[in-house]
Parts: sequence; C-alpha cells; structure tokens
Amino acid sequence: MTDIFFSEVMGTAMLTLLGCGVVANVILPKTKGFNAGWVVITFGWGLAVFAGVYVAYKSGAHLNPAVTFGLAASGGDLFGGNQDLGIAPVPSTFGNIVTYLAGELVGAFIGAILAFLAFKRHFDQEAPAATKLAVFSTGPEIRSYGWNFVTEVIGTFVLVFVIILFGPSPSGLGPLAVALLVVSIGMSLGGPTGYAINPARDLGPRIAHAVLPIRGKGSSDWGYSWVPIAGPIVGGVLGGLLGGAVT
Amino acid sequence: MTDIFFSEVMGTAMLTLLGCGVVANVILPKTKGFNAGWVVITFGWGLAVFAGVYVAYKSGAHLNPAVTFGLAASGGDLFGGNQDLGIAPVPSTFGNIVTYLAGELVGAFIGAILAFLAFKRHFDQEAPAATKLAVFSTGPEIRSYGWNFVTEVIGTFVLVFVIILFGPSPSGLGPLAVALLVVSIGMSLGGPTGYAINPARDLGPRIAHAVLPIRGKGSSDWGYSWVPIAGPIVGGVLGGLLGGAVT
Amino acid sequence: MTDIFFSEVMGTAMLTLLGCGVVANVILPKTKGFNAGWVVITFGWGLAVFAGVYVAYKSGAHLNPAVTFGLAASGGDLFGGNQDLGIAPVPSTFGNIVTYLAGELVGAFIGAILAFLAFKRHFDQEAPAATKLAVFSTGPEIRSYGWNFVTEVIGTFVLVFVIILFGPSPSGLGPLAVALLVVSIGMSLGGPTGYAINPARDLGPRIAHAVLPIRGKGSSDWGYSWVPIAGPIVGGVLGGLLGGAVT
Amino acid sequence: MTDIFFSEVMGTAMLTLLGCGVVANVILPKTKGFNAGWVVITFGWGLAVFAGVYVAYKSGAHLNPAVTFGLAASGGDLFGGNQDLGIAPVPSTFGNIVTYLAGELVGAFIGAILAFLAFKRHFDQEAPAATKLAVFSTGPEIRSYGWNFVTEVIGTFVLVFVIILFGPSPSGLGPLAVALLVVSIGMSLGGPTGYAINPARDLGPRIAHAVLPIRGKGSSDWGYSWVPIAGPIVGGVLGGLLGGAVT
Repeated sequence: MTDIFFSEVMGTAMLTLLGCGVVANVILPKTKGFNAGWVVITFGWGLAVFAGVYVAYKSGAHLNPAVTFGLAASGGDLFGGNQDLGIAPVPSTFGNIVTYLAGELVGAFIGAILAFLAFKRHFDQEAPAATKLAVFSTGPEIRSYGWNFVTEVIGTFVLVFVIILFGPSPSGLGPLAVALLVVSIGMSLGGPTGYAINPARDLGPRIAHAVLPIRGKGSSDWGYSWVPIAGPIVGGVLGGLLGGAVT
Repeated sequence: MTDIFFSEVMGTAMLTLLGCGVVANVILPKTKGFNAGWVVITFGWGLAVFAGVYVAYKSGAHLNPAVTFGLAASGGDLFGGNQDLGIAPVPSTFGNIVTYLAGELVGAFIGAILAFLAFKRHFDQEAPAATKLAVFSTGPEIRSYGWNFVTEVIGTFVLVFVIILFGPSPSGLGPLAVALLVVSIGMSLGGPTGYAINPARDLGPRIAHAVLPIRGKGSSDWGYSWVPIAGPIVGGVLGGLLGGAVT
Repeated sequence: MTDIFFSEVMGTAMLTLLGCGVVANVILPKTKGFNAGWVVITFGWGLAVFAGVYVAYKSGAHLNPAVTFGLAASGGDLFGGNQDLGIAPVPSTFGNIVTYLAGELVGAFIGAILAFLAFKRHFDQEAPAATKLAVFSTGPEIRSYGWNFVTEVIGTFVLVFVIILFGPSPSGLGPLAVALLVVSIGMSLGGPTGYAINPARDLGPRIAHAVLPIRGKGSSDWGYSWVPIAGPIVGGVLGGLLGGAVT
Repeated sequence: MTDIFFSEVMGTAMLTLLGCGVVANVILPKTKGFNAGWVVITFGWGLAVFAGVYVAYKSGAHLNPAVTFGLAASGGDLFGGNQDLGIAPVPSTFGNIVTYLAGELVGAFIGAILAFLAFKRHFDQEAPAATKLAVFSTGPEIRSYGWNFVTEVIGTFVLVFVIILFGPSPSGLGPLAVALLVVSIGMSLGGPTGYAINPARDLGPRIAHAVLPIRGKGSSDWGYSWVPIAGPIVGGVLGGLLGGAVT
C-alpha cells in the first residue's frame, strides 16, 4: 500500500504540475505562451496525463478519484498488476480505495505548489484574481450548478468508459491513448466548465490556492467546489458500470 | 446482430457526442474554446473517431454508413472479427448491412442529444440560428449542390480507400491511424463543406436538431441534407471498389 | 514495375490531393479553414504523407524523387520489399529509378487536379493570382535563388537522412514517423521557401496549374521552378550518402 | 568512444537545426510561419527531439548534458546498448561522460549554424537584436536569476525523471514518447524562461550567435547564460537521483 500511495502521489503531482502549468503559461501575464489558446490548453493537459501515467506505473496510474471509483464500480481490480515487473494486482478493497484517493489528493496539492513556484514571478504580476484562481481550479463560464454538474458527469463518463474499453484493444498505445482521450474531452466537452473530470485535480490545487501566499489572491470559490467533485464521481461510476457491463 | 447493433450505437454516439461537442465548444458563445479555430475542430473530430473506435470494438467500428457500403463494395467481410476476443467475422449480407446502418444512425442521434445537454446553457445564449445548426450538421460555405457533392465524394473516397489500405500495413497504430486520417481529411478537404464524409454523422444530428427544444432554432436545412448523404455513399463505394481491387 | 509505377502514382496523388488541399483550405477565400495558420499547414502536409505512405505500400512509398535519388545514393535497395506480403526487394537499377520518378510525377499531377476539383468554387472566387498558385507550388517569401536553394537542400537533407536512420530503430511507428518528420521540417525549415523538399510535389502541381482553367490565374512562375527541383535532389543525395555511411 | 561522440554530434546538431529553426520561423520577419505561436514552437522543438533521437541511436541519444548527468546520478549505465545492433552498453565513467558532453556541445553549435544558413535572408531583415538572439538561445520574460533558475530546475527535473521512468513501460513509443514529453514541458513550463532544459542546446547556439556575422546583432547576453546551464544540470541530477531511487 505504501507503493501505491507514493506512486499516485508522484503521478498526480506530475499531472497537476504540468496541467496547472499549461494554464499558467496561457493565461498569466508576460509568459511566452500567453494567449496561446485552447489547442495548447488541451494538448498540455493531455500530455500532463501522459507524463503522469508513466510516473505512476506501479499503481496503474489512476491519478483521479473518478477513475478509482469507476474501476471499483466496474467490478474489476483497481489495477491488474504487471507480471513482468513483479507487481501484484490490486483488488477493490475499502483500504485500497482510500489509499488511492489519499495519494491522488496529496499529489494534486503538491503539483500545484510546484507549478506556483515555476511561475512565481508571473503570479507576482497584476492580473484579475479569477485568472490566478483559474491556474489552480476549474470554474464555469456560465454559472449554473445543475448544468455544470451535467457537463462534468458527461465528460467524466466518457473518460472512464473509454479507459475501460482500452482493455480489450490490442493497439498498445498505452499512456498515449489515455493522453489523447483527455485531449479529446478537453477539446469537445471542456468548453462550459473547464473539464475538471477529476475531483483531486480540482480540490488539491484549490487547497493550494487557499494556503499559498499569492499576490492579489481572491476567493478560492468554495461555493462551486462541490461540482467538480460530485460530477466526476457520478460520471466515473456511471462509466465504470457501463464499461464493466459491456466488456 | 444485437452485439453489432449496440456496438455501433455506442461507438457512433461517442463519435457525435465528441464531434458535435468540439464544434459547440469552438462556435457557441461564452465557451472556453470559443474561436479556437480549425486546428481544434479537426483534431477534435479526429479524436472523436479515436474514442468511438475503441467503444465499438465488437463490431469493427464502422460508425459510418460510407464505411459500411465501402467495405461491402470492396468484396470483403464487414468486419474481420477478433479471434483473441472470440468475435466471429461479419459477412457482407443484407441483414448485417442494415444492422450496421441502423446502429450508426441511432447512435449519431443519441450522441448529438448528449452534446446538446453538455452545452445546454450555451445553446440558451443568443447566437445566429445557422451557428446553432452548425453544431449538429454540416453545411457548405459556398452553396453549390453539384460541387459540394464532388467535395464530399472526394473526401469520403480518401477515407474509405485508405482505411482499406491500412489492412496490409504492420504498423499497429489501430484506432490512432483512423483518427489521424480523419484529422487529415478535415484539414485538407474539410474547407468547402465541413466534411460530413459520413451520412449518419450528418443525418442523425440533423434529426436531433429538428426535434430538440433549442432556443432561437432556425431551419434544419433539409434542402442540403441529401448532399452529405449521397456524396459520402458514392465516395465510400468508389473507395471500397478501388481499395478492394488494389489490395 | 507496373506495380511500382501505379503504387507511386496512387500514393503521390494522395499526397498532393491532401497537401495542396490543406493549402487551399487555409489560403483560399471562404473556406472553413481560412487563416488557420502554419500549424494546420504543417500538420496537414505531414498527414498527407501519412495517408500517401499507406497507399503506396507496394513500392515502399517514396512519393518523392529526392527519396528515390537519396536511397540510390545510400547504396541500398530502393525498397526492401515485404516478405509477409510476398513483395520482392527493388534494387537500385536505372529502370527502377525511372519507374519511381515517372510514377511520382504523374501522381503529383493527378492529386493536384483532384484538389482543384474539391475546391472548385473557392478557386472561382476573387483572390490574388499568387495565392492561387501557392495552392499548387511552393514559392519563396524572399526571392533569392541561391539562399532558397540552400534552404531546400538543408530541408531535404534532413528528410532523407532521418528516413534512412529510421531503419535501425525498433520503434515500429512506420508511416507515423515519416509524417511527424515532415511536420517537423515544415515547422522548423518551411518558413523561407514553403519546403518543397520534393521535386514531384512541386513540379506536378505546377504543371497542373499551367494547364487547368483556373479563374484569374497568373503566371506559373517557371523562373523559380528549378529551385524546388534541384535543391531537393542535391539535399536528398547528400542525405542518402551520409545516411548510407552512418548506418 | 568515437562512435558515441559523432552520434551525439549528429543528433544534437539535428536537434538545434530543427529547434532553432522553428523559433526562426515563428519570430523572424517575412517567414511563412511568422507569428504561428506557442503551439508551433512547442511541437517544433518536440519533433526536433524526435528526429535527433533517431539520428543518435548509436549512443542512446542523450543530446543533453542534463540527461547525461541525470543518468550518471541515477546509478545506471549512460546507455543500455542495443543487442540487435551489436552496440555494447556504455558505463558511467568519467571519460564517457566527457565524450557525451563534448559531442552535445559541438553538435548544438553546428546545428545552430545550419539553422542560420537556412534562414539567412530572414536574418538579413530588420528585427530587434533580442529577436535574433532568441533564435539561438533562451532568455527569461521576467529577468530574475533566482526564479528563472528554479523554473529551469523544475522543467529539467521533469524531463530526466520521466525519461528514466519510460524504462519500465512496455509502450514501445520510443522516440515519440520523448518528443511528446518535450512538447509537454514546453507547453506547461516553458512560459517563464523558454525552457532551455538543456545546457548544450543553450550554450552551443549562444556561441554560434557570438561568432556568426549576423546583421544587426546585439549582445549574446552572457550575463544570463549560466542559468540555462546550472538550472538544467541541477534539475537533471535531481531527476536522475529520484528516478534511480524509484525504479
């Protein structure tokens, strides 16, 4: 369980370091990537998953509570293990689920802090408080809790359902397939809410935002924070149930 | 046949959810991807195919009547099956063809409705009726039924011809190869008509547009609707005939 | 030799259909991809190669006289053949070289005509004559025959040298590796001359431009036409010589 | 050792030819890629690595002193060798490390000169001296040696740490995985300093800038030059240490 915990910590830290990083690069003042647009945001997050999956290879790289809950709901193991590397399968027990969730949340928090350090001088510039928060956590373009929730459910359903269907495919793209799926969800379904599709990716950096000494920092918008937690969990469980039934 | 039907329904629903989704994200008001441009549209549709192909692995993932007709015209099976998964080949019979077509159309309709739900609040904004229709169905930039038809024939010919030629290649890219081919067709041949290259992808969402309660909705442009049906079928059959002759 | 000829015709036609197509989409008036920029041009051409390579699998998919001359210069076969498909190696004889070159030129001409047909109504719009030519053939941003020649030599050297070095690699990316290499050359070295890096890709479409009834057509700029022929041949031979020496 | 030296020279020259090239294409006046933006810069550099890795296959393609130091710090060989090609492993000795470093620096210098030649006429145009330097070497958007150093440490840590973790993965993407990782670092962490993440990539071209007869050339900014050397070395060693501990 220690291996799983640290694997998820490192992988999810890599995810949010690179993920929050690409948002910082595109929206904070005076960066070289300023205003580089949605194509960079979506490829950046997809490749953040790509790197994170390699880092967390010892635990199957969930990096995301919605994936953990979805795999549990699908009726399979949390991780099939890796015979070549001598890693045993991880069954869907309460203790293992909690270990994954804890690793994901801690990792997401750490990665956000590293992203903050990488862009420290750009956070020191003048910018709207909402822009600075957006580096860390998602927020809707049109606030409407019910519909924002629906959007997160659909996006996360796609993520978990398709990941489970990667299983029977012989394509062998591995981490690249997951990365491209995340690019796809961002391009296609990320417009309304910024596609959290991952409770840890949203909550961990939001906590970092709350505790870090960021210049001109505003609210951490806790009023919205339940949507990118509840929506992805519901979507992930639905994706896991249907994925488990289909395969 | 039930397996084939549901496989194509799910795969094509995934295709139009993500495909209509990326158009919504780029052209509807107040999305995070607003005005992200043709690079996002084309990668978004390509990756929509990528996800759809994984979802419909039990039926060989046609997701497109032009592919179904093209494979029938090529003289081979509709699907070679998958020995590892115990899936038998699907021969080119009338009943099987109809099963594929029905699954594709139903799936395309369902996916468009899901995309509508994901972007509900953005459809509620003021926008030209043509913009809202464009999320669902293709339309030409310069209306000219004959030449629009030609463009769709050429684009779909490329799609089906190259897919058949993937067969002899040992590259093993699988779903990624099809996805990149669709990105290519979009970038290179999508400019005049929006590259339906798939009758179900156009007709299913057009029906969804006709029945959904979309704010400020205009015509579903049925006058043009035959072009993205007939063009892709002709192009797909030509691609299948030449592909079958060459391989 | 008939197989080689038709394989190269079809593959190179696919290359220029999609390659000229992406330029048309980005620079002709009223297309959906208008002004989509260099990222679309370069991915579009790269993916045009991707599709063309699959189509010309029976001949090893040169699609480019610079590759043919480069492989001849490298001291190996023009094509290693494919035992699984029962295709014999193609040795570097005069007759085989001529067969490749003829197929490449004829194919490039045909593909350009198909691209013209796909964008017929957009060619009918008002646009500068230079824009319409640019769909077909390359031209320098700063005319300077000597330096333009140098740029084409360097770009084509990279193409042929790296293709030969793909040989020892076990990565198995196949057509995707070539496609990404062409994207790379376009992004990095395409700025001054538009990276013909392929005499057939430039000359075939230039002949098509000369003979097609294009509205408001201007000069086919034959004064420049030797640069994208001579530069790529020199660069390809240099790449083949060094590649052959290294591997 | 001669093989290693020349392999690294050629691979790193390919890296900076294509890498400096993409910057030239995006920022020098009158190129076709002018203002193509961060998406082209980052994919261009990533694909420059892609090509360079193939070229330097005989030495494991470090192309980067931070990778050399990182692998040495990880406790493994500098290169595992390639049994199929009869290439022996390269142990982490002082002599081998110096050989890699020398090849990387010489190659980076040569590649920058080739990029200069490919864009000669564009360097002849009027442009700010800082723009011309930026083709060769990195510079920070907000000058702050300490924080710029931190950013380079973090970016290079990601590079070396994840490369080491590619080891246990069976994905077989090879050079593409490294390329996508570099795209990722550029998109996510390249904003503040331009992501040297490679002392040779920065120092070699800076020396080229200092000695080349560039029109309107200004300072080579030697005051900053230690940051993209020291930062990547520290980050690479940290990545190597953690990577070695984890795998």
